[in-house]
Amino acid sequence: MAEKKVEPHLFVIFGATGDLAKRKLMPAIAMLAQTGKLGERYAILGVGRGDDIDDDGFRALVNDALREAGIPSGTARAWCERCLHYQKVSYQTPDDFAALGRRIEELERENDLPGNRVFYLSTPPAVFELTIDGLGQAGLNQGPGWTRLVIEKPFGHNLQSAIDLNACVHRHFTESQIYRIDHYLGKATVQNLFVFRFANMLFEAIWNRDRIASVDILVAEEIGVGSRAGFYEKTGAVKDILQNHAMQLFALIAMEPPSNGAAEAIRSEKIKLLYATQPLREEDIVLGQYTPGVINGREVKGYHEEPGIAPDSLTETFAAVRLRVNNWRWQGVPFIVRTGKRLRRRVTQIAVNFRTAPVWFFETMGQKLAHPNSLILRLQPNEGFELGIQVKDPNQPERLRTVPLIFDYADTFGRLPEAYETLLLDTLVGDQTLFVHGVETEAAWRIFEPFVESQPKVHGYAAGTWGPEAMARLMPRNRDEAAE
Amino acid sequence: MAEKKVEPHLFVIFGATGDLAKRKLMPAIAMLAQTGKLGERYAILGVGRGDDIDDDGFRALVNDALREAGIPSGTARAWCERCLHYQKVSYQTPDDFAALGRRIEELERENDLPGNRVFYLSTPPAVFELTIDGLGQAGLNQGPGWTRLVIEKPFGHNLQSAIDLNACVHRHFTESQIYRIDHYLGKATVQNLFVFRFANMLFEAIWNRDRIASVDILVAEEIGVGSRAGFYEKTGAVKDILQNHAMQLFALIAMEPPSNGAAEAIRSEKIKLLYATQPLREEDIVLGQYTPGVINGREVKGYHEEPGIAPDSLTETFAAVRLRVNNWRWQGVPFIVRTGKRLRRRVTQIAVNFRTAPVWFFETMGQKLAHPNSLILRLQPNEGFELGIQVKDPNQPERLRTVPLIFDYADTFGRLPEAYETLLLDTLVGDQTLFVHGVETEAAWRIFEPFVESQPKVHGYAAGTWGPEAMARLMPRNRDEAAE
Repeated sequence: MAEKKVEPHLFVIFGATGDLAKRKLMPAIAMLAQTGKLGERYAILGVGRGDDIDDDGFRALVNDALREAGIPSGTARAWCERCLHYQKVSYQTPDDFAALGRRIEELERENDLPGNRVFYLSTPPAVFELTIDGLGQAGLNQGPGWTRLVIEKPFGHNLQSAIDLNACVHRHFTESQIYRIDHYLGKATVQNLFVFRFANMLFEAIWNRDRIASVDILVAEEIGVGSRAGFYEKTGAVKDILQNHAMQLFALIAMEPPSNGAAEAIRSEKIKLLYATQPLREEDIVLGQYTPGVINGREVKGYHEEPGIAPDSLTETFAAVRLRVNNWRWQGVPFIVRTGKRLRRRVTQIAVNFRTAPVWFFETMGQKLAHPNSLILRLQPNEGFELGIQVKDPNQPERLRTVPLIFDYADTFGRLPEAYETLLLDTLVGDQTLFVHGVETEAAWRIFEPFVESQPKVHGYAAGTWGPEAMARLMPRNRDEAAE
Repeated sequence: MAEKKVEPHLFVIFGATGDLAKRKLMPAIAMLAQTGKLGERYAILGVGRGDDIDDDGFRALVNDALREAGIPSGTARAWCERCLHYQKVSYQTPDDFAALGRRIEELERENDLPGNRVFYLSTPPAVFELTIDGLGQAGLNQGPGWTRLVIEKPFGHNLQSAIDLNACVHRHFTESQIYRIDHYLGKATVQNLFVFRFANMLFEAIWNRDRIASVDILVAEEIGVGSRAGFYEKTGAVKDILQNHAMQLFALIAMEPPSNGAAEAIRSEKIKLLYATQPLREEDIVLGQYTPGVINGREVKGYHEEPGIAPDSLTETFAAVRLRVNNWRWQGVPFIVRTGKRLRRRVTQIAVNFRTAPVWFFETMGQKLAHPNSLILRLQPNEGFELGIQVKDPNQPERLRTVPLIFDYADTFGRLPEAYETLLLDTLVGDQTLFVHGVETEAAWRIFEPFVESQPKVHGYAAGTWGPEAMARLMPRNRDEAAE
């Protein structure tokens, strides 16, 4: 999070003609360039398997992508011309990487760059290890300046594969060179969770089992699987969102205060929390798959009817877990973490449900029981906070009402920067705070490991609902009982 | 605060042709009547010293007053005709009260009332004792039904006079019959302080010296003395507002949780707090008097130039005290209580200043020190709450910003009822929660007694400022030092 200068560098993107590069990475780099944040001297080298394009073809392809992303094409074309280059690496042979090394040195000479390099792996995970070994064996793991490796998620598909991938990376790179990216951590509202907790004495004072009954983390999508059937059938809701994005939200909301604001201090608190979190039992998990239903008045198909999905597919499109944290702060407080496609509406939020008032004076005011206070940290849409409090309805003296104290980001700050802009800039200045540590990836998989083995039942849920009815068994019976 | 039926009753107002009755009491009674809250059978008897008016004259006078208060005159005229009566009580002799007694019985017969009576003393305080003794000696302290006595402020002008007035009242009435009115307690936002604190676990958890650095209670007026010179010269800011209204705000914000929601439980906590509050030392007080200045771009006179004010008057138009509470919750937390005329703008609010975060991670984000959180409970204008929190400015990653979480009453509830409507209704249903107990009046005077003796210096302050410069010495040097 520090304010540092970006040093002259070469940015190398593997998978440069792929979907993520076109939709997210190149627009983010272009925005950083336009706002002067990339510094004075840099070059970008796209790496792909195809030999049907060259430097010019790549520039044209990126120029189109930038236009689609709404970046003014007048300046973009000239920028592509000046800064973009392309190199083919077909079969990931030693020869390919030797040629890549020569091209890198050539571009550094031409652009007067001191040898600082970023390698960004925006490829399918199946080729991560091949690429990393290739870089290492070609001696590209270290250069004349600094060398950083950015790895996209998913980081492994179970505990063993995460351990294997970490081992592969560590054969060639030290942990301080590695930037495991989870774009959720780049969202302004997610980063603000850290500020919210530790720059406001108010909340830290009540952030514990004495005051909080339960915490609900919800990542809900309105969209279905769309055109991503091939990817999604192999992935499912747990590996797509729950085990990575949602667990990062959990870690930021539940970790202890770090001893300082440095990346290492924060990441080690997240790791500590994940190790205090118990591996899932079967009764802590509910999976679901959407069936036909109605969203916003529009009829939508069930998952089995989507193009490219096998009619007997058991891939989960909904996953919820109840996490149990065995530490002094949280023992007995359930953390319900949910994600799903085709839910009632798109929303990502963390709801902190406080315990009720221990004594209740207001029965004469027409309310038998205390309504607990709640704090909602909304990450999208309408980023902001809502603190639900009880007030007296002045026109009906016998009534209490729950009303929200509200803060809305956009009202105050306007456009929020894209997550990838933040994270690419952090990579370039060498700030690992918002990236996932190797131990963290394994600690998170450790929690999910029993589930990966057991393959629990997948319940149907109608599109447009909040998930399967079986969810009811995960939720605390009432909010205050939760912490008993 | 209970929801109870109003029983058939006779409402007797002493000082019925006076300013308060015309501006506040009669409009409030008429509003309660219009909204069906006065029940089915009742009558209103105005009592005054003048024999220049009779029943009809009084009805006409009230009808005019209602029109001025914006109450539709079509229905008001018929209502005045049906419900209002007038009785002269000139010299407060036994004969006067005997005649009053006969008139009361006559009205009760005519209106089929069971003998429930309210006596409302809306007279200058100088005749309180005479009237109370008169009622008692005529046997009007008890009737066939219940009898209640409402006494307007100020309740005494120092400790001894409050003790004397209480003794006089208790010669004839029991404490459960007595309704000492402070119209501040009838404001919806003031009543809500009780709900705010005890229906929201969130705030009670941090409502103590460990978390709160200081509390500022501010009752600021923009207006000057206006046409009230005669009254104000004898009164001043301490007796007009600080010792009663402002001390009630202090009591509600600082008292311990009562053991239940009943009037006795709440009032005994207020008393306990007032006894834990140390009598004022001279260094805890700042008095001021306004000099010429500018408010909202308009030049205004100094107090000495106002009509009816002696050029050498020492009456204070500003008063501030620093209260010290010697109990486990508040020891060491200063409560700064301020009021004044001709201040920069009209506002009544309580600001709770929390302590800063004990550890600060955000120096790299361009902010050297923690800004403390603050909670503002605004009673007027724009009734509501503001909770000041720190967030990250998403467009300037190196910046923290203090932003408010906001709740605004009027946005949610529309028009708030007038304080007198609430308090008159509470009197009629027999709910003493929002009225001041006799012991409370004495306990509050006990705190101010040393000041009343010492007559501290009165500092000048320019109209349109926030008071004399000498205020600086009352304020904590910085908010977090306050609680050290």
